[in-house]
Amino acid sequence: MRQINVGIIGFGTVGTGVVKLLTESRELISSRIGAELHIKYVADLDIERDRGVKIDKSVLVTDIDTVVSDPCVDIVVELIGGETIAKTAIMKAIENGKHVVTANKALLAGAGKDIFSAAARAKVDVGFEASVAGCIPIIKSIKESLSANHIHSVSGILNGTCNYILTKITSEGTVFSQALEAAQKKGYAEADPTLDIEGIDAAHKLAILTALAYGMTINLDDIYVEGIKDITPEDIKHAEHLGYRVKLLAISKFVGDAVEARVHPTMIPFDNLFASVNDSVNAVNVNGDAIGDMFFVGKGAGMMPTASAVVSDLIDISRNILSCTSQRVPLLSYCDESIKTIPVLPMDEILSRYYFRFTAVDRPGVLSTISGILGSYGISIKSVQQAEDKNERHVPIVIVTGPAREADVKQAITDINKLPITNGKAVLIRIGIESWPENSF
Amino acid sequence: MRQINVGIIGFGTVGTGVVKLLTESRELISSRIGAELHIKYVADLDIERDRGVKIDKSVLVTDIDTVVSDPCVDIVVELIGGETIAKTAIMKAIENGKHVVTANKALLAGAGKDIFSAAARAKVDVGFEASVAGCIPIIKSIKESLSANHIHSVSGILNGTCNYILTKITSEGTVFSQALEAAQKKGYAEADPTLDIEGIDAAHKLAILTALAYGMTINLDDIYVEGIKDITPEDIKHAEHLGYRVKLLAISKFVGDAVEARVHPTMIPFDNLFASVNDSVNAVNVNGDAIGDMFFVGKGAGMMPTASAVVSDLIDISRNILSCTSQRVPLLSYCDESIKTIPVLPMDEILSRYYFRFTAVDRPGVLSTISGILGSYGISIKSVQQAEDKNERHVPIVIVTGPAREADVKQAITDINKLPITNGKAVLIRIGIESWPENSF
Repeated sequence: MRQINVGIIGFGTVGTGVVKLLTESRELISSRIGAELHIKYVADLDIERDRGVKIDKSVLVTDIDTVVSDPCVDIVVELIGGETIAKTAIMKAIENGKHVVTANKALLAGAGKDIFSAAARAKVDVGFEASVAGCIPIIKSIKESLSANHIHSVSGILNGTCNYILTKITSEGTVFSQALEAAQKKGYAEADPTLDIEGIDAAHKLAILTALAYGMTINLDDIYVEGIKDITPEDIKHAEHLGYRVKLLAISKFVGDAVEARVHPTMIPFDNLFASVNDSVNAVNVNGDAIGDMFFVGKGAGMMPTASAVVSDLIDISRNILSCTSQRVPLLSYCDESIKTIPVLPMDEILSRYYFRFTAVDRPGVLSTISGILGSYGISIKSVQQAEDKNERHVPIVIVTGPAREADVKQAITDINKLPITNGKAVLIRIGIESWPENSF
Repeated sequence: MRQINVGIIGFGTVGTGVVKLLTESRELISSRIGAELHIKYVADLDIERDRGVKIDKSVLVTDIDTVVSDPCVDIVVELIGGETIAKTAIMKAIENGKHVVTANKALLAGAGKDIFSAAARAKVDVGFEASVAGCIPIIKSIKESLSANHIHSVSGILNGTCNYILTKITSEGTVFSQALEAAQKKGYAEADPTLDIEGIDAAHKLAILTALAYGMTINLDDIYVEGIKDITPEDIKHAEHLGYRVKLLAISKFVGDAVEARVHPTMIPFDNLFASVNDSVNAVNVNGDAIGDMFFVGKGAGMMPTASAVVSDLIDISRNILSCTSQRVPLLSYCDESIKTIPVLPMDEILSRYYFRFTAVDRPGVLSTISGILGSYGISIKSVQQAEDKNERHVPIVIVTGPAREADVKQAITDINKLPITNGKAVLIRIGIESWPENSF
């Protein structure tokens, strides 16, 4: 049986999962390809530690160069993360004519252009299914299964850490910092959780999905990003009362001659499927002209789900190798000459419905002052709730708006925050996705 | 730009959708392939009728033979359904070295073996994404994206007509016959709805998924099939009260050395995502050793969602043609020599939880007699509800059981039906899927 040689860089969680899958499911995988995926190298700085998987010690190396240079290696799997060593390794592998599989969303979102241009020149494949939403086959679906569609929107719960934290606050009423601690204890959040909780990781993934969906190049800085640090049990309770769950949603919409691309906490109606996606689970919805909505739910992280995506890329590329072809599917979903520059709409210009919570003194006229300011900016009010007086000087006022322009909302909030009758800054959470299957934001 | 010639057989709903998509999204599709998908022929008995799509009249033919014989045709799309003319057309196309795309689940479930053997010999591809669950990319996902997994189960709401009818009964309390009429008016159900409402269509689809998931051949007759004709608003109301929705679920499970394959109405807990899939929407869950659960939701029927799946196959095969390869992915997901014969477990041997509704005389001792019989067959009772006495002689008794063997349940029910204290036959509905993400049946 023909052997395809794989060189793995990075023996951390996902690397261990890939070794485990290639070893324990060797027979299954061969029966799917008609060839054997052979682990030629596993490179890591620490090759002494027991990773809990069977591995032939002789394949362990500390030197990345061996992996990307050995002519025997057919496919290099990059699983070290980061944007410097990983990029150098991938570029060298490509230069040496090797196919590449990576789970590195930060690198692809930032330096994807360099990598894909080099791959195009070298006529090698780059698999990156594992970079977005773990085992959910969203990359392959956009590039292949849904490829007859003009895609209107792609949106998703793309960060399991944030979804776990928000679920915890929702179900237990814990405050953010405690929920984060719980996520760290469970291994869902890193010691430095910045990338996750500030929405940056979700933005990396959204950049990749946006580029593939519309056939465009996108600058990471053009994506509006707002994390979940300021979400309180109080706002989640108000949301529940109004019929919404709060999720960190990554949203990308094609709006004619521009694209919206944004990551922010979003209130989602109970009857929308996104509202039922809890814990560390991920979900993605694709809306296209022929399919309407197509919704995927699955594990977005973790050793084995991510390994499953990596190995599916290995199988895909192996099938290309056996068929003596490469880049059978355009690397970025559309043929190079069709990739366009589409502007990203500034956040100020988006339309959304909004949830506001103001803290105001409890006396007559306050509501009319606030609603007067909103009205002066053309923001229509759908509902107002003022909590009962509990002998406190300040009471929360919760307002839900109709569709309004972000710039108007910001101005109105600035004006209201300045009022002597309000105390502290207003809370603003955008409301999205009216109902499945209409899926309008 | 290179041209790939497509011959379409059948200008009905899906055929019209395919023509519409290939015409109206021509530019998009070319930008995905780097070649043009050209409609060379559309064959139908009626080529006069206006189908509401732009089409060059000269491509319309009434003769299938022209389509499957013309050496210019690269891919034949079979969309006439049925198992005789369709099979002849497909076999001729394959013999003539043409690739085939079909949405014909009945044909594949019945005569798949002949078709795939012929295709293997002729080294042509057979695309059938549209045969199961419309635009949901479940075929490609099993064959490619999830291919590193030992699949434990595949289950799904695979028939939109039944799901529409059950949703209607649930939301409006209408009886089955009225809900069916509504489905027919909406165009969701055929004039002769037998294939849908008796679960046969879902069984055809389950046969295809089962074969692909485990790499096995399956005999359609081995699949247990029970339709939705006998589902009443009364039982759906009891189910709601118990925390369940009733769905027609197609279930396939790998249980070591055998497979379970069955289609029947199933009570699903509210917190399972299947319970939220309503109207004519389809959903599929795949459980695998690396991924855990992966859940897909999308439109399972209709002109454009089905056309999207057909055209995705055309794009896939075109990419193979341009790469000078075919059968890059094994036709049936596993290499030929790895396809096994795995026995299908007789229905009598499956384990499930059950919902029973008995109609019994309202007098002391009745409950103990019934529970005594269940107990004598080793069936444990989890809950019993007896409706309040409304001055009627007979009252409904609703029982939910723990896991029990189907054969024991059947025996117990037979015994209970014979009792003079019961009136009419007992109602039995199986209970499935405890909760996402455990997904145990």
